Amino acid sequence: MSQAKFIVIEGLEGAGKSTAISTLRAELDAAGIQDIVNTREPGGTVLAEKMRALVKEEHEGEPLQDRAELLLMYASRIQLVETVIKPALAKGAWVIGDRHDMSSQAYQGGGREIDQTVMSSLKRIAIGDFKPDFTLYLDIDPRLGLERARGRGELDRIEKMDISFFERTRERYLEMANSDESVVIIDASQKIEDVQSSIQQAVRTWLAEQKG
Amino acid sequence: MSQAKFIVIEGLEGAGKSTAISTLRAELDAAGIQDIVNTREPGGTVLAEKMRALVKEEHEGEPLQDRAELLLMYASRIQLVETVIKPALAKGAWVIGDRHDMSSQAYQGGGREIDQTVMSSLKRIAIGDFKPDFTLYLDIDPRLGLERARGRGELDRIEKMDISFFERTRERYLEMANSDESVVIIDASQKIEDVQSSIQQAVRTWLAEQKG
Repeated sequence: MSQAKFIVIEGLEGAGKSTAISTLRAELDAAGIQDIVNTREPGGTVLAEKMRALVKEEHEGEPLQDRAELLLMYASRIQLVETVIKPALAKGAWVIGDRHDMSSQAYQGGGREIDQTVMSSLKRIAIGDFKPDFTLYLDIDPRLGLERARGRGELDRIEKMDISFFERTRERYLEMANSDESVVIIDASQKIEDVQSSIQQAVRTWLAEQKG
Repeated sequence: MSQAKFIVIEGLEGAGKSTAISTLRAELDAAGIQDIVNTREPGGTVLAEKMRALVKEEHEGEPLQDRAELLLMYASRIQLVETVIKPALAKGAWVIGDRHDMSSQAYQGGGREIDQTVMSSLKRIAIGDFKPDFTLYLDIDPRLGLERARGRGELDRIEKMDISFFERTRERYLEMANSDESVVIIDASQKIEDVQSSIQQAVRTWLAEQKG
């Protein structure tokens, strides 16, 4: 197999990211790729998980400011990229990311409507031109996704935002997915077997291209 | 008295910031300014103090990346400015800051040698053109300052950096102080009574200008 790759699963709450990660992992296994590191964002290192906790908590009496949230997301991402992802790739391990930069662009840029120039200059400051080799974006109507997520239990601070927030987030996700060849859109509103087979198909096609 | 002001004390470890804050406060009291809020950075709010802890701790096995540290400093500053400093000023309270943005410029920009363009675009993203009305920069040779700080007890992660780090930090402090009319340089290597009287003199002069 060619050199180690960084593959990311993206999507709204309830899009089925966890299942997608299992499906992806099984496809990589089947292709003989065994050295795989799983990450999640925000978080994924001791320090980054502490930053994640600050973002996810409810803070009665002191609202977390949108731009402070954004900086915490990027501080977390820097720790993960520099201390986990880049070292893993360098030693030949593949990395499967449960979210990466596209989430910040979609949630903070799209959902919270932070200026595009702020979003791109911060990304450049934090991670330069580092990016995933391949991304599966699980597209779902936020009404359906949130309904699924609600079925799983309590919603966190971000998951409690109103529906228009998630609609803006999805819109930004789709804009990015449609303008980046390394992103494949998966229709996550299908029934689970069909989502899985769409993912399998996309991963096989991509893996075949890597060999070619 | 004219409208509420934001006054900041800056300087290296061991420069005597705590004493300077008491001296400043006494001068404001004497001028009839009683509604005063004290802040410190990084920190100063519940969330910002959690971010401060991440910056100050030793992290065995996972070094805090320079740019992650910088983003945490700015996330903390956003929380403090938006939820404490601006609201205090708006209701007419004066604010005395134990460090503010000049510290990031000096320590992260000067000491850690992070690009000047990164420093200024991050500052703009985080706080826009918000700045102190008046700053007292306590200038001291880092060898003397660190000797004093060591006398106080254990040094934290940043205070353990080597001398050249603090020399670059001081140099950046001096550059900024010399190019900003709202900053007064106090020679903090003098004996304590002389430092205090320099501060008193500077504050009185500035207060008189505010009335004029």
